[in-house]
Amino acid sequence: MNNDLHNLAINTIRTLAMDAIQKANSGHPGLPMGAAPMAYTLWTQFLRHNPHNPQWANRDRFILSAGHGSMLLYALLHLTGYDLSLDELKNFRQWGSKTPGHPEVHEAPGVEITTGPLGQGAASAVGFALAEAYLAAYFNRPGHEIVDHYTYALVSDGDLMEGVASEACSLAGTWGLGKLIFLYDDNHITLDGETAMTFTEDVALRFQAYNWHILKVADGNDIEAIARAIQVAKNVHDKPTLIAVHTVIGYGSPHKQGTSSAHGSPLGAEEVRLTKEFYGWPQDKPFYIPDEALRHYREAVERGAGYEAEWQARFQAWQAAYPDLAAEWEQAQSGQLPAGWDTTIPTFPDKPVATRSASGMVLNAIAQHIPTMIGGDADLAGSTKTLLKESENTWQGRPAARNVRFGVREHGMGAIVNGLALHGGIIKPYSATFLTFSDYMRGAIRLGALMNLPAVYVFTHDSIGLGEDGPTHQPVEHVAALSTIPNLTVIRPADANETAAAWHTAMTLSGPVVLIFTRQDVPVLAGDHIRTGVARGGYVLAGDDSVPDVILISRGSEVHIALEAYQTLTHEGVRARVVSLPSWELFEAQDAAYQERVLPSGVTARVSIEAGVTLGWDRYVGRQGIIIGINRFGASAPYETIYEQFGLTPGAVVQAAHDLLKK
Amino acid sequence: MNNDLHNLAINTIRTLAMDAIQKANSGHPGLPMGAAPMAYTLWTQFLRHNPHNPQWANRDRFILSAGHGSMLLYALLHLTGYDLSLDELKNFRQWGSKTPGHPEVHEAPGVEITTGPLGQGAASAVGFALAEAYLAAYFNRPGHEIVDHYTYALVSDGDLMEGVASEACSLAGTWGLGKLIFLYDDNHITLDGETAMTFTEDVALRFQAYNWHILKVADGNDIEAIARAIQVAKNVHDKPTLIAVHTVIGYGSPHKQGTSSAHGSPLGAEEVRLTKEFYGWPQDKPFYIPDEALRHYREAVERGAGYEAEWQARFQAWQAAYPDLAAEWEQAQSGQLPAGWDTTIPTFPDKPVATRSASGMVLNAIAQHIPTMIGGDADLAGSTKTLLKESENTWQGRPAARNVRFGVREHGMGAIVNGLALHGGIIKPYSATFLTFSDYMRGAIRLGALMNLPAVYVFTHDSIGLGEDGPTHQPVEHVAALSTIPNLTVIRPADANETAAAWHTAMTLSGPVVLIFTRQDVPVLAGDHIRTGVARGGYVLAGDDSVPDVILISRGSEVHIALEAYQTLTHEGVRARVVSLPSWELFEAQDAAYQERVLPSGVTARVSIEAGVTLGWDRYVGRQGIIIGINRFGASAPYETIYEQFGLTPGAVVQAAHDLLKK
Repeated sequence: MNNDLHNLAINTIRTLAMDAIQKANSGHPGLPMGAAPMAYTLWTQFLRHNPHNPQWANRDRFILSAGHGSMLLYALLHLTGYDLSLDELKNFRQWGSKTPGHPEVHEAPGVEITTGPLGQGAASAVGFALAEAYLAAYFNRPGHEIVDHYTYALVSDGDLMEGVASEACSLAGTWGLGKLIFLYDDNHITLDGETAMTFTEDVALRFQAYNWHILKVADGNDIEAIARAIQVAKNVHDKPTLIAVHTVIGYGSPHKQGTSSAHGSPLGAEEVRLTKEFYGWPQDKPFYIPDEALRHYREAVERGAGYEAEWQARFQAWQAAYPDLAAEWEQAQSGQLPAGWDTTIPTFPDKPVATRSASGMVLNAIAQHIPTMIGGDADLAGSTKTLLKESENTWQGRPAARNVRFGVREHGMGAIVNGLALHGGIIKPYSATFLTFSDYMRGAIRLGALMNLPAVYVFTHDSIGLGEDGPTHQPVEHVAALSTIPNLTVIRPADANETAAAWHTAMTLSGPVVLIFTRQDVPVLAGDHIRTGVARGGYVLAGDDSVPDVILISRGSEVHIALEAYQTLTHEGVRARVVSLPSWELFEAQDAAYQERVLPSGVTARVSIEAGVTLGWDRYVGRQGIIIGINRFGASAPYETIYEQFGLTPGAVVQAAHDLLKK
Repeated sequence: MNNDLHNLAINTIRTLAMDAIQKANSGHPGLPMGAAPMAYTLWTQFLRHNPHNPQWANRDRFILSAGHGSMLLYALLHLTGYDLSLDELKNFRQWGSKTPGHPEVHEAPGVEITTGPLGQGAASAVGFALAEAYLAAYFNRPGHEIVDHYTYALVSDGDLMEGVASEACSLAGTWGLGKLIFLYDDNHITLDGETAMTFTEDVALRFQAYNWHILKVADGNDIEAIARAIQVAKNVHDKPTLIAVHTVIGYGSPHKQGTSSAHGSPLGAEEVRLTKEFYGWPQDKPFYIPDEALRHYREAVERGAGYEAEWQARFQAWQAAYPDLAAEWEQAQSGQLPAGWDTTIPTFPDKPVATRSASGMVLNAIAQHIPTMIGGDADLAGSTKTLLKESENTWQGRPAARNVRFGVREHGMGAIVNGLALHGGIIKPYSATFLTFSDYMRGAIRLGALMNLPAVYVFTHDSIGLGEDGPTHQPVEHVAALSTIPNLTVIRPADANETAAAWHTAMTLSGPVVLIFTRQDVPVLAGDHIRTGVARGGYVLAGDDSVPDVILISRGSEVHIALEAYQTLTHEGVRARVVSLPSWELFEAQDAAYQERVLPSGVTARVSIEAGVTLGWDRYVGRQGIIIGINRFGASAPYETIYEQFGLTPGAVVQAAHDLLKK
């Protein structure tokens, strides 16, 4: 290979990025221009992928954590032969294109993950690498390495400033994820200026402290040095590797390179011209791709077919040797739940139990049928009850463990769970912590929802019902706040049997689900209608088929307060109905007839009760009803006292019903 | 001092913690028992505080970041003579006590900050230290050091795992905050077990990478070594210091020390007895405080009075020498805004402008009158427009700079802003980033709201109106999600003049305020009613006093869509009204008569329009109205296209009004 071809290929990425961003009049040219040589080196010399089958299970993963450099990725995908036409690049950032401003996993083939919010890609890359390690440990057999690939992430200064990346990278070191390799685009520039202003730490030393292997490349245009570093990194098996590559942002732009003005805006037509001049590029041909460069990149197609064919042969040998294991693989790959997966979900007898405890039993009952269901907690497993009883804890050198212990790192946990889910649809991941700490991981949950990932986020200690720990630990706004996120289904069951139904529903939905459980014991409900009722988001829990005088609506532990009030009202001769509404999202998805049957529009005397903010309940209660909730922070005391002091009592519900019926 | 008295004093903390937790049957004894020696050493030998004046401006600050160890702090406060009785300790975690489960700043004197959610205290400590550095740089003069104190934080393994702490501590190193000292309770145990499982990184090396000075104390019971380390730390002026103190969690408990079972639950009566036996403590006297120990601790009262008297003398000399500066100090201390603070807020002429740009002008107009108003951005100042034009950027050795540059660290920014606000009520802090990244800093915003801090959180790029960056960067749920947080006032103004009014309101409120601004230009509204209208959260923007046929309700940039629809409807002869509702919280705080005047209950034909989720709008629109919003994620395209494609158009509003009026 001669240097001219290398440069031609590298400059093709740079100029495509410049041109697309100039045409869109929007975008971030600096990163693609500075990082093109390392991306080129990785994609042409190391990355084992198959452009004609982006879903090949054993491909190396490439994550562009610095998602604002999206044109780098789009250029690579087009050039190496993915189904992403040059016209798509010309439609960068336009309505309906496959090339949105930041890479989105479901828009273009070959995009492994939606990135843009900094730190998330880097952190999720740890999840990809953990997925690889787990699946390898589970499926591989001596002489049969059917899961055996690397995870590469291109990360920026901004990525490494974010706490979510710090959390996940510390875990990657603890877990010794040797097949995780970061290419750090170390360009000393952020949107607002030089990193000298805000990012003076010794990044390499920090990653060394995390137990990473550190390599440095002094000149980001030195592709031989880059290749040597990647080769060394591949041979370090017991640690992840950070390769700090010193680059020049906007390389080649005579007036903007090395400055933040190359970061987040188009270069401008004249600067594009001057930069192309510097590259020795035709200045009158936007989106110009030299034939030699294209041919060179497109070798990836044949190479990729070869990689996959070689793997298919290995796979078939393994399949022949281990047919049962292979059947499990196929089952997991199918995206379907295995037959009988729900047969051991318990039905709970009439004995009060915390829904978190019930959840733990149900999770264990389900997970025993699904070996690729793994997950864990943020140092609260004893409280969230999410440990799998027959499984080990993750630990250095123990990748087959199913209990992933994240430490006190909620945001990192969320991003790693996203990576586990994204790795190939085989792993069904879950996370767990207290509901109040859902705030810490919201950035990751949002991306999980945007990507519609099949993750289950368990949150326990769901209200003032946790008692003495007080307002810092008592969620009041979190159920509503989580419900604002599109694509996310939030379920807060009332008891152990609704909990079983909630898990059942969560397993069958294709998108992300939040399950919310109590710390405290609650009574147990009975009835065959519970499973379908929860699956529909809401159902009539008490009351006959006649049109009631008053409807009491509730969810979670407060359903039992509504039931007590119902008893009193019924005793008084009031025709009341209790509606359990564990999930707004599932209920909204029902047809109007079902909704009308549960909440007849003619009945305007409605009382809702939940130990949380009232925002959002108006939809079900209407302007003529009464919403009983908590529009303040909690308090530290035994929980029964707090319920009483905050007016969340059967008496308050009865009083509200009386007030409405008097009107 | 003899060793017996030291031990007596230390064991007094330990046993008070054990007893209070045992009595409450809830709490975390392990940390107070392990960390008592370092806390004792700090509080008796180093901490310059005045128990009889917890508000003394120049006190050293002590932050218990590991808030679950609250009994350590309560014991210290009681013992050293703060107004916190032994009865309060006996009422630990009970309704109405000053001793909630985690320390809360407004509950007990001497509690500097509400802690519990891990990482927050450590990160906010950086804000305290930055406040000290800024105020010292601003107010001190040669020979007159009136601001000159240390900030100490006791931090745990959990604190240092959290990304929010990583972010803030990296900044502390960049800023060279020499008066910040962490005592790290390095006990190798978390709630779920040994740190070997989840936290194997080299913490000291990581902090060295952040530019911290590192000290280690091998035996957490060696108070001489602890004292030596603190003394060294105090003498390091150009770097913060981390003192890693190796302790034994639950020290003295024969069956539980050194294990996670000492972490989060009462020891149990028998183990308490055995532990007291080990300490040589009377086993039949709960809450026993030896007289000698109490006398020893209470020396803090006289010592503290002396510290403050000495400072008062210094203060008076400074006051005499610099009366103008002293007047500024008094002004800031008063908590009142200075006369004329709002006189230079501009009124905007009729020329479209992005509300973020208007915000930048208004902020600059206000801040010129208030030298203790400081704040900054998470690497987006060029976009959020929050730079103060006449001021410098924070940088090592430049503590007087008012533009605090946080880098890409939203969560750390939020926690540091909390620390700035908490430092003494002098600093009025603000932060800024894109609205979508409010998710990253939600943990800190929640605590700011819980503490009712006077912080202003600026969020720009507030909707699909940011266009090409696409769904990762387009908030749709964030306005509603922020509105779920108690105590937090959210204002989303419609134009430049509502923006001026929103800033005006934000400055006069005592609690935290979120201000939400557009990226794109929007038309400018005119009228004297805007300032009072925004202050009341909502007002009639268009339409006469008669009862309308239909009410169009909106906020933010969508108000202009409503106004266009209003023109069409008026032209058609429909009596319409446009209500601008920039803040749900402020509107809810108005009396019923005002609310009725703006939104007459008899008018059920109501249409709302906002480029965000519909959740929450039901309250104003009612079940018979139509809510136009976006219950999905955004898209990457020029923003005009997205508005059109998503059906957020004047035509859609007109159509909705027609539909309602036909009914």
